[in-house]
Amino acid sequence: MLICEVVGHVWATKKQPELDGLKLMVVRETRADEKSGRTFVAVDTVGAGVGEQVLVVDGSTARRAVGKDASPVDCAIVGIIDTLEVQKTKLK
Amino acid sequence: MLICEVVGHVWATKKQPELDGLKLMVVRETRADEKSGRTFVAVDTVGAGVGEQVLVVDGSTARRAVGKDASPVDCAIVGIIDTLEVQKTKLK
Amino acid sequence: MLICEVVGHVWATKKQPELDGLKLMVVRETRADEKSGRTFVAVDTVGAGVGEQVLVVDGSTARRAVGKDASPVDCAIVGIIDTLEVQKTKLK
Amino acid sequence: MLICEVVGHVWATKKQPELDGLKLMVVRETRADEKSGRTFVAVDTVGAGVGEQVLVVDGSTARRAVGKDASPVDCAIVGIIDTLEVQKTKLK
Amino acid sequence: MLICEVVGHVWATKKQPELDGLKLMVVRETRADEKSGRTFVAVDTVGAGVGEQVLVVDGSTARRAVGKDASPVDCAIVGIIDTLEVQKTKLK
Repeated sequence: MLICEVVGHVWATKKQPELDGLKLMVVRETRADEKSGRTFVAVDTVGAGVGEQVLVVDGSTARRAVGKDASPVDCAIVGIIDTLEVQKTKLK
Repeated sequence: MLICEVVGHVWATKKQPELDGLKLMVVRETRADEKSGRTFVAVDTVGAGVGEQVLVVDGSTARRAVGKDASPVDCAIVGIIDTLEVQKTKLK
Repeated sequence: MLICEVVGHVWATKKQPELDGLKLMVVRETRADEKSGRTFVAVDTVGAGVGEQVLVVDGSTARRAVGKDASPVDCAIVGIIDTLEVQKTKLK
Repeated sequence: MLICEVVGHVWATKKQPELDGLKLMVVRETRADEKSGRTFVAVDTVGAGVGEQVLVVDGSTARRAVGKDASPVDCAIVGIIDTLEVQKTKLK
Repeated sequence: MLICEVVGHVWATKKQPELDGLKLMVVRETRADEKSGRTFVAVDTVGAGVGEQVLVVDGSTARRAVGKDASPVDCAIVGIIDTLEVQKTKLK
Protein backbone atom coordinates (compact mmCIF):
# COMPACT_ATOMS: atom_id res chain seq x y z
CA MET A 1 0.00 0.00 0.00
CA LEU A 2 1.15 3.47 -0.73
CA ILE A 3 1.34 6.21 1.89
CA CYS A 4 -0.45 9.19 0.36
CA GLU A 5 -1.93 12.54 1.31
CA VAL A 6 -5.38 13.52 0.08
CA VAL A 7 -4.85 16.78 -1.78
CA GLY A 8 -8.10 17.43 -3.63
CA HIS A 9 -11.19 16.36 -5.52
CA VAL A 10 -11.97 15.65 -9.15
CA TRP A 11 -15.31 15.91 -10.95
CA ALA A 12 -16.19 14.15 -14.18
CA THR A 13 -19.71 14.34 -15.62
CA LYS A 14 -18.97 12.23 -18.66
CA LYS A 15 -17.71 8.93 -17.32
CA GLN A 16 -18.34 5.19 -17.26
CA PRO A 17 -21.71 4.59 -15.51
CA GLU A 18 -20.08 2.21 -13.00
CA LEU A 19 -18.21 5.22 -11.57
CA ASP A 20 -21.47 6.99 -10.60
CA GLY A 21 -21.72 7.60 -6.88
CA LEU A 22 -18.06 6.90 -6.17
CA LYS A 23 -16.07 9.67 -4.48
CA LEU A 24 -12.99 10.46 -6.58
CA MET A 25 -10.15 12.09 -4.65
CA VAL A 26 -6.80 13.41 -5.75
CA VAL A 27 -3.97 11.86 -3.73
CA ARG A 28 -0.22 12.45 -3.70
CA GLU A 29 2.31 9.83 -2.71
CA THR A 30 4.47 10.81 0.28
CA ARG A 31 8.10 10.24 -0.57
CA ALA A 32 11.18 10.38 1.62
CA ASP A 33 13.67 11.64 -0.94
CA GLU A 34 11.61 13.86 -3.20
CA LYS A 35 9.73 17.01 -2.38
CA SER A 36 6.52 15.67 -3.86
CA GLY A 37 5.54 12.22 -5.10
CA ARG A 38 3.24 11.25 -7.90
CA THR A 39 -0.27 12.72 -7.98
CA PHE A 40 -3.20 10.57 -9.11
CA VAL A 41 -6.88 9.79 -8.44
CA ALA A 42 -8.26 7.18 -6.01
CA VAL A 43 -11.77 6.13 -5.03
CA ASP A 44 -12.42 6.83 -1.35
CA THR A 45 -13.94 3.88 0.58
CA VAL A 46 -13.37 5.08 4.17
CA GLY A 47 -14.55 8.70 4.37
CA ALA A 48 -11.19 10.41 3.96
CA GLY A 49 -10.85 14.19 3.75
CA VAL A 50 -8.40 16.62 2.20
CA GLY A 51 -5.20 16.90 4.27
CA GLU A 52 -5.40 13.40 5.73
CA GLN A 53 -2.69 10.80 5.27
CA VAL A 54 -4.14 7.59 3.84
CA LEU A 55 -3.32 4.05 2.71
CA VAL A 56 -3.90 3.51 -1.00
CA VAL A 57 -4.07 0.21 -2.94
CA ASP A 58 -3.87 -0.11 -6.69
CA GLY A 59 -4.34 -2.62 -9.52
CA SER A 60 -6.82 -5.47 -9.22
CA THR A 61 -6.79 -5.01 -5.42
CA ALA A 62 -8.56 -1.66 -5.82
CA ARG A 63 -11.52 -3.49 -7.34
CA ARG A 64 -11.61 -5.73 -4.25
CA ALA A 65 -11.62 -2.60 -2.08
CA VAL A 66 -14.58 -1.17 -4.00
CA GLY A 67 -16.30 -4.52 -3.70
CA LYS A 68 -17.22 -4.96 -7.36
CA ASP A 69 -14.82 -6.77 -9.67
CA ALA A 70 -16.41 -5.19 -12.76
CA SER A 71 -15.69 -1.60 -11.59
CA PRO A 72 -13.38 0.43 -13.82
CA VAL A 73 -11.36 1.35 -10.71
CA ASP A 74 -7.61 0.75 -10.29
CA CYS A 75 -6.86 2.85 -7.21
CA ALA A 76 -8.65 3.09 -3.82
CA ILE A 77 -8.19 4.59 -0.36
CA VAL A 78 -8.57 1.77 2.21
CA GLY A 79 -7.48 3.38 5.49
CA ILE A 80 -6.82 6.70 7.22
CA ILE A 81 -3.43 6.78 8.96
CA ASP A 82 -3.48 7.74 12.66
CA THR A 83 0.19 7.19 13.42
CA LEU A 84 3.20 6.45 11.29
CA GLU A 85 6.27 5.37 13.23
CA VAL A 86 9.40 5.09 11.13
CA GLN A 87 12.96 4.26 12.25
CA LYS A 88 16.28 4.90 10.53
CA THR A 89 14.76 6.88 7.72
CA LYS A 90 13.07 10.19 7.57
CA LEU A 91 9.74 9.97 5.83
CA LYS A 92 8.61 13.32 4.47
CA MET B 1 -6.46 6.40 -11.98
CA LEU B 2 -4.02 8.59 -13.76
CA ILE B 3 -4.72 12.21 -14.67
CA CYS B 4 -3.83 12.51 -18.34
CA GLU B 5 -4.29 14.83 -21.29
CA VAL B 6 -5.37 13.46 -24.65
CA VAL B 7 -2.65 14.53 -27.07
CA GLY B 8 -3.29 12.59 -30.27
CA HIS B 9 -4.39 9.53 -32.21
CA VAL B 10 -2.72 6.38 -33.37
CA TRP B 11 -3.58 4.17 -36.34
CA ALA B 12 -2.58 0.54 -36.77
CA THR B 13 -3.85 -1.52 -39.70
CA LYS B 14 -2.04 -4.69 -38.72
CA LYS B 15 -3.26 -5.51 -35.23
CA GLN B 16 -5.00 -8.13 -33.12
CA PRO B 17 -8.59 -8.51 -34.46
CA GLU B 18 -10.03 -7.82 -30.99
CA LEU B 19 -8.73 -4.24 -31.30
CA ASP B 20 -10.91 -3.57 -34.39
CA GLY B 21 -13.37 -0.76 -33.83
CA LEU B 22 -11.71 0.51 -30.66
CA LYS B 23 -10.59 4.17 -30.68
CA LEU B 24 -6.90 4.35 -29.77
CA MET B 25 -5.78 7.70 -28.37
CA VAL B 26 -2.40 8.98 -27.33
CA VAL B 27 -2.44 10.30 -23.76
CA ARG B 28 0.19 12.01 -21.63
CA GLU B 29 0.27 11.84 -17.87
CA THR B 30 -0.01 15.24 -16.16
CA ARG B 31 2.74 15.56 -13.59
CA ALA B 32 3.31 18.20 -10.96
CA ASP B 33 7.08 18.18 -10.88
CA GLU B 34 8.04 17.38 -14.46
CA LYS B 35 7.34 19.34 -17.61
CA SER B 36 5.81 16.34 -19.32
CA GLY B 37 4.83 12.91 -18.03
CA ARG B 38 4.86 9.59 -19.80
CA THR B 39 3.14 9.29 -23.18
CA PHE B 40 1.23 6.10 -24.04
CA VAL B 41 -1.88 4.77 -25.78
CA ALA B 42 -5.32 4.21 -24.21
CA VAL B 43 -8.64 2.95 -25.57
CA ASP B 44 -11.30 5.66 -25.34
CA THR B 45 -14.61 4.50 -23.79
CA VAL B 46 -16.25 7.89 -23.10
CA GLY B 47 -15.92 9.97 -26.27
CA ALA B 48 -12.85 11.99 -25.28
CA GLY B 49 -11.19 14.46 -27.67
CA VAL B 50 -7.70 15.86 -28.12
CA GLY B 51 -6.93 18.54 -25.53
CA GLU B 52 -9.25 17.16 -22.84
CA GLN B 53 -8.06 16.09 -19.41
CA VAL B 54 -9.14 12.52 -18.67
CA LEU B 55 -9.07 9.72 -16.09
CA VAL B 56 -7.12 6.68 -17.26
CA VAL B 57 -7.05 3.15 -15.76
CA ASP B 58 -4.50 0.49 -16.58
CA GLY B 59 -3.75 -3.20 -16.08
CA SER B 60 -6.56 -5.74 -15.72
CA THR B 61 -8.94 -2.88 -14.85
CA ALA B 62 -8.69 -1.57 -18.42
CA ARG B 63 -10.22 -4.82 -19.65
CA ARG B 64 -13.14 -4.25 -17.25
CA ALA B 65 -13.53 -0.74 -18.68
CA VAL B 66 -13.67 -2.10 -22.23
CA GLY B 67 -16.15 -4.72 -21.04
CA LYS B 68 -14.44 -7.79 -22.49
CA ASP B 69 -11.94 -9.69 -20.38
CA ALA B 70 -10.34 -11.26 -23.48
CA SER B 71 -9.44 -7.87 -25.02
CA PRO B 72 -5.72 -7.22 -25.52
CA VAL B 73 -6.18 -3.84 -23.83
CA ASP B 74 -4.23 -2.65 -20.77
CA CYS B 75 -5.10 1.05 -20.74
CA ALA B 76 -8.46 2.85 -21.05
CA ILE B 77 -9.98 6.32 -20.68
CA VAL B 78 -12.94 6.06 -18.25
CA GLY B 79 -13.89 9.71 -17.59
CA ILE B 80 -13.48 13.27 -18.84
CA ILE B 81 -12.42 15.67 -16.08
CA ASP B 82 -14.62 18.75 -15.62
CA THR B 83 -12.96 20.19 -12.54
CA LEU B 84 -9.78 19.30 -10.69
CA GLU B 85 -9.46 20.98 -7.29
CA VAL B 86 -6.09 20.47 -5.65
CA GLN B 87 -4.81 21.89 -2.36
CA LYS B 88 -1.26 22.34 -1.08
CA THR B 89 0.31 21.20 -4.30
CA LYS B 90 0.44 22.68 -7.72
CA LEU B 91 -0.66 20.22 -10.35
CA LYS B 92 0.58 21.18 -13.80
CA MET C 1 -0.39 0.33 -24.31
CA LEU C 2 3.17 1.41 -24.70
CA ILE C 3 4.57 2.93 -27.88
CA CYS C 4 7.73 0.96 -28.63
CA GLU C 5 10.21 0.34 -31.41
CA VAL C 6 11.30 -3.19 -32.25
CA VAL C 7 15.08 -3.19 -31.88
CA GLY C 8 16.15 -6.83 -32.00
CA HIS C 9 15.68 -10.49 -31.30
CA VAL C 10 16.48 -12.77 -28.40
CA TRP C 11 17.15 -16.51 -28.43
CA ALA C 12 16.84 -18.84 -25.46
CA THR C 13 17.29 -22.59 -25.83
CA LYS C 14 16.72 -23.38 -22.17
CA LYS C 15 13.28 -22.00 -21.34
CA GLN C 16 9.82 -22.91 -20.11
CA PRO C 17 8.24 -25.30 -22.68
CA GLU C 18 5.19 -23.01 -23.05
CA LEU C 19 7.49 -20.42 -24.67
CA ASP C 20 8.38 -22.80 -27.54
CA GLY C 21 7.34 -21.44 -30.90
CA LEU C 22 6.74 -17.90 -29.67
CA LYS C 23 8.74 -15.13 -31.37
CA LEU C 24 10.60 -13.13 -28.73
CA MET C 25 11.54 -9.61 -29.80
CA VAL C 26 13.51 -6.89 -28.06
CA VAL C 27 11.53 -3.64 -27.89
CA ARG C 28 12.40 -0.19 -26.60
CA GLU C 29 9.86 2.25 -25.26
CA THR C 30 9.69 5.53 -27.22
CA ARG C 31 9.87 8.41 -24.80
CA ALA C 32 9.34 12.10 -25.39
CA ASP C 33 11.75 13.46 -22.83
CA GLU C 34 14.52 10.90 -22.75
CA LYS C 35 16.87 9.82 -25.49
CA SER C 36 16.02 6.16 -25.01
CA GLY C 37 13.32 4.42 -22.99
CA ARG C 38 13.40 1.08 -21.27
CA THR C 39 14.43 -1.99 -23.27
CA PHE C 40 12.67 -5.31 -22.68
CA VAL C 41 11.35 -8.45 -24.41
CA ALA C 42 7.85 -8.94 -25.86
CA VAL C 43 6.16 -11.83 -27.67
CA ASP C 44 5.19 -10.81 -31.21
CA THR C 45 1.59 -11.68 -32.17
CA VAL C 46 1.22 -9.56 -35.34
CA GLY C 47 4.29 -10.21 -37.52
CA ALA C 48 6.34 -7.17 -36.50
CA GLY C 49 9.87 -6.58 -37.76
CA VAL C 50 12.94 -4.75 -36.50
CA GLY C 51 12.62 -0.97 -36.97
CA GLU C 52 8.82 -0.90 -36.79
CA GLN C 53 6.93 1.12 -34.19
CA VAL C 54 4.48 -1.10 -32.31
CA LEU C 55 1.84 -1.18 -29.58
CA VAL C 56 2.85 -3.27 -26.58
CA VAL C 57 0.67 -4.55 -23.71
CA ASP C 58 1.97 -5.95 -20.45
CA GLY C 59 0.86 -7.79 -17.32
CA SER C 60 -2.10 -10.19 -17.39
CA THR C 61 -3.27 -8.55 -20.64
CA ALA C 62 -0.24 -10.00 -22.46
CA ARG C 63 -1.53 -13.49 -21.68
CA ARG C 64 -4.87 -12.52 -23.29
CA ALA C 65 -2.95 -11.32 -26.35
CA VAL C 66 -1.11 -14.64 -26.63
CA GLY C 67 -4.45 -16.43 -26.18
CA LYS C 68 -3.40 -18.82 -23.41
CA ASP C 69 -3.83 -17.76 -19.78
CA ALA C 70 -1.25 -20.32 -18.61
CA SER C 71 1.55 -18.83 -20.75
CA PRO C 72 4.54 -17.46 -18.84
CA VAL C 73 4.25 -14.26 -20.90
CA ASP C 74 3.89 -10.75 -19.45
CA CYS C 75 4.56 -8.58 -22.51
CA ALA C 76 3.20 -8.80 -26.08
CA ILE C 77 3.16 -6.79 -29.32
CA VAL C 78 -0.51 -6.36 -30.38
CA GLY C 79 -0.32 -3.86 -33.27
CA ILE C 80 2.01 -2.22 -35.78
CA ILE C 81 1.68 1.57 -35.81
CA ASP C 82 1.01 3.14 -39.24
CA THR C 83 0.52 6.73 -38.11
CA LEU C 84 1.03 8.49 -34.82
CA GLU C 85 -0.48 11.97 -34.68
CA VAL C 86 0.44 13.92 -31.57
CA GLN C 87 -0.47 17.50 -30.68
CA LYS C 88 1.13 19.88 -28.18
CA THR C 89 3.95 17.54 -27.35
CA LYS C 90 6.84 16.23 -29.35
CA LEU C 91 7.06 12.47 -29.21
CA LYS C 92 10.49 11.21 -30.11
CA MET D 1 10.05 -10.04 -4.94
CA LEU D 2 11.53 -6.88 -3.62
CA ILE D 3 14.37 -6.78 -1.10
CA CYS D 4 13.20 -4.40 1.63
CA GLU D 5 14.04 -3.36 5.17
CA VAL D 6 11.31 -3.08 7.77
CA VAL D 7 11.52 0.50 9.03
CA GLY D 8 8.38 1.06 11.08
CA HIS D 9 4.72 0.56 11.86
CA VAL D 10 1.53 2.26 10.79
CA TRP D 11 -1.76 2.49 12.65
CA ALA D 12 -5.14 3.20 11.09
CA THR D 13 -8.34 3.09 13.14
CA LYS D 14 -10.63 4.01 10.28
CA LYS D 15 -10.06 1.37 7.63
CA GLN D 16 -11.74 -1.33 5.58
CA PRO D 17 -12.96 -4.06 8.01
CA GLU D 18 -11.02 -6.75 6.08
CA LEU D 19 -7.80 -5.08 7.26
CA ASP D 20 -8.66 -5.70 10.95
CA GLY D 21 -6.11 -7.88 12.68
CA LEU D 22 -3.49 -7.57 9.95
CA LYS D 23 -0.08 -6.19 11.00
CA LEU D 24 0.79 -3.22 8.80
CA MET D 25 4.50 -2.47 8.57
CA VAL D 26 6.42 0.29 6.84
CA VAL D 27 9.08 -1.11 4.52
CA ARG D 28 11.75 0.55 2.40
CA GLU D 29 13.17 -0.98 -0.75
CA THR D 30 16.93 -1.61 -0.63
CA ARG D 31 18.54 -0.17 -3.72
CA ALA D 32 22.06 -0.52 -5.00
CA ASP D 33 22.43 2.85 -6.63
CA GLU D 34 20.34 5.14 -4.48
CA LYS D 35 20.75 6.03 -0.83
CA SER D 36 17.17 5.09 -0.05
CA GLY D 37 14.50 3.30 -2.07
CA ARG D 38 10.77 3.76 -2.03
CA THR D 39 8.94 3.58 1.30
CA PHE D 40 5.51 1.92 1.48
CA VAL D 41 3.28 -0.30 3.65
CA ALA D 42 3.11 -4.12 3.58
CA VAL D 43 1.11 -6.68 5.55
CA ASP D 44 3.40 -8.91 7.60
CA THR D 45 2.69 -12.65 7.25
CA VAL D 46 5.90 -14.10 8.78
CA GLY D 47 6.51 -12.27 12.07
CA ALA D 48 9.02 -9.72 10.81
CA GLY D 49 10.43 -6.98 13.04
CA VAL D 50 11.83 -3.50 12.53
CA GLY D 51 15.40 -3.63 11.22
CA GLU D 52 15.04 -6.98 9.45
CA GLN D 53 15.59 -7.42 5.74
CA VAL D 54 12.56 -9.08 4.11
CA LEU D 55 11.11 -10.35 0.86
CA VAL D 56 8.05 -8.40 -0.27
CA VAL D 57 5.49 -9.31 -2.96
CA ASP D 58 2.98 -6.93 -4.47
CA GLY D 59 -0.08 -6.82 -6.71
CA SER D 60 -2.50 -9.75 -6.86
CA THR D 61 0.22 -11.99 -5.40
CA ALA D 62 -0.04 -10.15 -2.08
CA ARG D 63 -3.64 -11.34 -1.77
CA ARG D 64 -2.40 -14.92 -2.26
CA ALA D 65 0.14 -14.33 0.52
CA VAL D 66 -2.57 -13.11 2.88
CA GLY D 67 -4.68 -16.11 1.88
CA LYS D 68 -7.89 -14.25 1.06
CA ASP D 69 -8.50 -13.05 -2.48
CA ALA D 70 -11.06 -10.48 -1.30
CA SER D 71 -8.55 -8.68 0.97
CA PRO D 72 -7.83 -5.05 0.09
CA VAL D 73 -4.11 -5.84 0.31
CA ASP D 74 -1.58 -5.24 -2.48
CA CYS D 75 1.71 -5.67 -0.63
CA ALA D 76 2.89 -8.41 1.78
CA ILE D 77 6.05 -9.59 3.55
CA VAL D 78 6.54 -13.31 2.71
CA GLY D 79 10.03 -14.08 4.06
CA ILE D 80 12.77 -12.85 6.39
CA ILE D 81 16.19 -12.80 4.70
CA ASP D 82 18.97 -14.68 6.52
CA THR D 83 21.69 -14.31 3.92
CA LEU D 84 21.97 -12.32 0.74
CA GLU D 85 24.90 -13.30 -1.45
CA VAL D 86 25.46 -10.99 -4.41
CA GLN D 87 28.25 -11.09 -7.02
CA LYS D 88 29.47 -8.40 -9.39
CA THR D 89 27.29 -5.73 -7.93
CA LYS D 90 27.26 -3.97 -4.62
CA LEU D 91 23.84 -4.10 -3.05
CA LYS D 92 23.40 -1.37 -0.48
CA MET E 1 9.81 -9.87 -19.96
CA LEU E 2 12.76 -8.17 -18.42
CA ILE E 3 16.34 -8.83 -19.49
CA CYS E 4 18.24 -9.51 -16.29
CA GLU E 5 21.54 -10.92 -15.05
CA VAL E 6 21.59 -13.42 -12.22
CA VAL E 7 23.83 -11.87 -9.57
CA GLY E 8 23.35 -13.95 -6.44
CA HIS E 9 21.30 -16.06 -4.07
CA VAL E 10 19.11 -15.33 -1.12
CA TRP E 11 18.27 -17.55 1.84
CA ALA E 12 15.26 -17.18 4.12
CA THR E 13 14.50 -19.72 6.83
CA LYS E 14 11.39 -17.98 8.11
CA LYS E 15 9.08 -17.72 5.14
CA GLN E 16 5.67 -18.69 3.80
CA PRO E 17 5.54 -22.53 3.56
CA GLU E 18 4.58 -22.32 -0.14
CA LEU E 19 8.06 -20.93 -0.83
CA ASP E 20 9.75 -24.12 0.49
CA GLY E 21 11.82 -25.84 -2.15
CA LEU E 22 11.82 -22.90 -4.56
CA LYS E 23 15.23 -21.55 -5.62
CA LEU E 24 15.35 -17.81 -4.90
CA MET E 25 17.91 -15.89 -6.97
CA VAL E 26 18.94 -12.27 -6.94
CA VAL E 27 18.63 -10.72 -10.40
CA ARG E 28 19.54 -7.29 -11.74
CA GLU E 29 17.82 -5.68 -14.70
CA THR E 30 20.14 -4.89 -17.61
CA ARG E 31 19.62 -1.31 -18.68
CA ALA E 32 20.94 0.51 -21.69
CA ASP E 33 21.28 3.96 -20.19
CA GLU E 34 22.17 3.30 -16.59
CA LYS E 35 25.17 1.55 -15.13
CA SER E 36 23.03 -0.82 -13.12
CA GLY E 37 19.32 -1.53 -13.13
CA ARG E 38 17.05 -2.53 -10.31
CA THR E 39 18.02 -5.52 -8.16
CA PHE E 40 15.32 -7.91 -6.90
CA VAL E 41 14.54 -11.59 -6.22
CA ALA E 42 13.06 -14.09 -8.69
CA VAL E 43 12.18 -17.78 -8.43
CA ASP E 44 14.28 -19.84 -10.85
CA THR E 45 12.26 -22.31 -12.99
CA VAL E 46 14.89 -23.18 -15.65
CA GLY E 47 18.13 -23.99 -13.81
CA ALA E 48 19.83 -20.60 -14.18
CA GLY E 49 23.20 -19.84 -12.59
CA VAL E 50 24.98 -16.74 -11.37
CA GLY E 51 26.40 -14.71 -14.27
CA GLU E 52 23.82 -15.84 -16.82
CA GLN E 53 21.52 -13.44 -18.64
CA VAL E 54 17.89 -14.45 -18.21
CA LEU E 55 14.29 -13.60 -19.10
CA VAL E 56 12.21 -12.61 -16.08
CA VAL E 57 8.41 -12.27 -15.80
CA ASP E 58 6.59 -10.55 -12.97
CA GLY E 59 3.11 -10.03 -11.52
CA SER E 60 0.41 -12.68 -11.90
CA THR E 61 2.40 -14.20 -14.80
CA ALA E 62 5.10 -15.32 -12.34
CA ARG E 63 2.52 -17.52 -10.63
CA ARG E 64 1.77 -19.12 -14.01
CA ALA E 65 5.51 -19.73 -14.47
CA VAL E 66 5.73 -21.44 -11.10
CA GLY E 67 2.65 -23.47 -12.00
CA LYS E 68 0.64 -22.81 -8.83
CA ASP E 69 -1.73 -19.85 -8.72
CA ALA E 70 -1.70 -19.83 -4.91
CA SER E 71 2.09 -19.32 -4.68
CA PRO E 72 3.23 -16.11 -3.01
CA VAL E 73 5.54 -15.49 -5.99
CA ASP E 74 5.53 -12.35 -8.15
CA CYS E 75 8.77 -12.76 -10.09
CA ALA E 76 10.21 -15.77 -11.97
CA ILE E 77 13.05 -16.64 -14.34
CA VAL E 78 11.52 -18.34 -17.43
CA GLY E 79 14.44 -18.58 -19.88
CA ILE E 80 18.22 -18.38 -20.17
CA ILE E 81 19.34 -16.04 -22.97
CA ASP E 82 21.75 -17.54 -25.54
CA THR E 83 21.92 -14.61 -27.93
CA LEU E 84 20.64 -11.07 -27.76
CA GLU E 85 20.74 -9.22 -31.07
CA VAL E 86 19.93 -5.54 -30.80
CA GLN E 87 19.96 -2.88 -33.53
CA LYS E 88 20.12 0.89 -33.28
CA THR E 89 20.60 0.90 -29.55
CA LYS E 90 23.39 -0.24 -27.35
CA LEU E 91 22.15 -2.55 -24.64
CA LYS E 92 24.55 -2.72 -21.73
